[in-house]
Amino acid sequence: MIPMKSRAAVAFNPGEPLKIVEIDVEEPKANEVLVKILYTSVCHTDAFTLSGDDAEGVFPAVLGHEGAGVVVAVGEGVTLVEPGDHVIPLYTAECGKCKFCLSGKTNLCSAVRETQGKGLMPDGTTRFSYNGEPIYHYMGTSTFSEYTVVPEISLVKVDPEAPLDKVCLFGCGVTTGIGAVHKTAKVEEGAVTAVFGLGAIGLAAIQGLVQAKAKRIIAIDLNEEKFALAKKMGATDCINPSKFDRPIQEVIIEMTDGGVDYSFECIGNVDVMRSALECCHKGWGESIIIGVAGAGKEISTRPFQLVTGRVWRGSAFGGVKGRTELPGMIADYMNDKIDLDSFITHQLHFNDINEAFDLLHKGESIRTILTYEG
Amino acid sequence: MIPMKSRAAVAFNPGEPLKIVEIDVEEPKANEVLVKILYTSVCHTDAFTLSGDDAEGVFPAVLGHEGAGVVVAVGEGVTLVEPGDHVIPLYTAECGKCKFCLSGKTNLCSAVRETQGKGLMPDGTTRFSYNGEPIYHYMGTSTFSEYTVVPEISLVKVDPEAPLDKVCLFGCGVTTGIGAVHKTAKVEEGAVTAVFGLGAIGLAAIQGLVQAKAKRIIAIDLNEEKFALAKKMGATDCINPSKFDRPIQEVIIEMTDGGVDYSFECIGNVDVMRSALECCHKGWGESIIIGVAGAGKEISTRPFQLVTGRVWRGSAFGGVKGRTELPGMIADYMNDKIDLDSFITHQLHFNDINEAFDLLHKGESIRTILTYEG
Repeated sequence: MIPMKSRAAVAFNPGEPLKIVEIDVEEPKANEVLVKILYTSVCHTDAFTLSGDDAEGVFPAVLGHEGAGVVVAVGEGVTLVEPGDHVIPLYTAECGKCKFCLSGKTNLCSAVRETQGKGLMPDGTTRFSYNGEPIYHYMGTSTFSEYTVVPEISLVKVDPEAPLDKVCLFGCGVTTGIGAVHKTAKVEEGAVTAVFGLGAIGLAAIQGLVQAKAKRIIAIDLNEEKFALAKKMGATDCINPSKFDRPIQEVIIEMTDGGVDYSFECIGNVDVMRSALECCHKGWGESIIIGVAGAGKEISTRPFQLVTGRVWRGSAFGGVKGRTELPGMIADYMNDKIDLDSFITHQLHFNDINEAFDLLHKGESIRTILTYEG
Repeated sequence: MIPMKSRAAVAFNPGEPLKIVEIDVEEPKANEVLVKILYTSVCHTDAFTLSGDDAEGVFPAVLGHEGAGVVVAVGEGVTLVEPGDHVIPLYTAECGKCKFCLSGKTNLCSAVRETQGKGLMPDGTTRFSYNGEPIYHYMGTSTFSEYTVVPEISLVKVDPEAPLDKVCLFGCGVTTGIGAVHKTAKVEEGAVTAVFGLGAIGLAAIQGLVQAKAKRIIAIDLNEEKFALAKKMGATDCINPSKFDRPIQEVIIEMTDGGVDYSFECIGNVDVMRSALECCHKGWGESIIIGVAGAGKEISTRPFQLVTGRVWRGSAFGGVKGRTELPGMIADYMNDKIDLDSFITHQLHFNDINEAFDLLHKGESIRTILTYEG
């Protein structure tokens, strides 16, 4: 059966819609796993790479990094999963052995990072091809192919009871937002907080802040249609920067008698990153950059902002170690401590994936779940 | 005796040398203290304000913020010190009661900050005058006057055995550098570190890093004449960025197999602040801005630097609470755990204060101790 044909949405060229084609998928090599993806969603990072603005994007490629599926076959030496296991592919692998994994200070495993960044498997080759020409991988996950091959350390085993059409969201946005609150910022009870941008990551951060018992959660977005959902998830205040004639950081400092204890930038806009830092309280306020900025964009501020006690941090995949820490978050979902349903604004068949990108571009969706079934 | 005459070096106009004159000093009001300064040194911040580049500088003023002396008289309600006490004036006061002092997260007391920034005492007036015209205070300390008036919360009582011509250095640079290591960065044993700029603050940071048992202390300066002292204090490597044809952050990342755990910017140059951040190790490296940048200058970097785990912080007065934490550092000096002597490259009479500024400008001094005696 392997090598096999697989339905996939291929990004042949930057700026063009994805093309649904049948690609060839090779069998998993040593320490690799073949996964049948059942559900995937579309995240802004996929759209960013597809646009061509991602300096590190390689084409043609199978994009997609927020998905869930079932292990079909394992390569030589694989011990972490077996056929039939329910899994979520991890764009942040966890080898448990590298300098980073052993540091206890970060989730940024270095084991497969270099080849992953080039769209390749760890041995420097690709498992995808179309008409005999190689197709690149993406973020080590490539969930826009019904069958994908990933390193075993890039998979987390999921409770077989967990609905994969929901928990696929843990592949990126939800984990990133909630994780940034607990793992990166380590928000404590009673904190005054601000969340910039009410997409999936921002909404997930709000849920994390509610879990952390933040006293105040100020949600900021230019699109007031997002306020209802933000409030439903736990935002205490919702403000629209375009309604004020002065910088939003000044508004927030006034609202909070000095600024917030923690702020989260969930957009990827370097000007907003500055606002998020500068709305922090003097002496201790910490700002966490989560959004991914465009190529070449830079953040800036007066150093006085830091010298007077503000801290500027960032977070990737919420600081969460996928294999060891994600199961706990999935359990939280199963125990009604995380609301995933509210993120899912649309459901489409995988063949309509370009429509999911359109919804995202227009800001009409939070998450569209794509199914390969049927 | 009070009001009284006092010898002072007055900054009448920005960019001009100080003028030694006899000013009039009024008696301390409620919660204020009259201090006879015995020794003061000159710090780059004094020179910065005198130059006119400090947007918040007010003139005419009595500058000076690194000094030590003896309490002469106290105003109504003063309970923290009494005449005869040896004291160091604190430009970072510690009231123990404000939101900041009570937070447990910062040393940036807000009690007298607003008036202090305007060169005034907490009641909005000044205790200094010359020919009937008011002279402003500076940083709440004004140690360039033989007699100065400060709030009682802006004084730390000093072990009477401690030599004031040495411990006056705790008024700024030494405390800032050592404190930034322990209180702001919280450097742990075995850390790999870098110190940018080998003035008093950088050298003090090196001493702090030795105390913290850092494994590696890379000292960076354009002036190689400073390397001997840096090595004496404990630097393990000394490098001159002008000797490399690539950015110094790349050099340091190579030297350390990935970057440093902690870096300290002790200059006030925004380009160096960027290098200091970017030489930090992915995943956990933290950079501490200590230097004071010129008016309007901004720091910048790609947000990717933070998203991949680096942390950007700042430190003021080393994060040290003056009244409660400085006595411990003075005890460290008395127990030979801090070397102050090596900072003192020159000793001059107070009347030659402009010479001390010249030595500083030329980079020929670390610290010049000025005595009012004689």
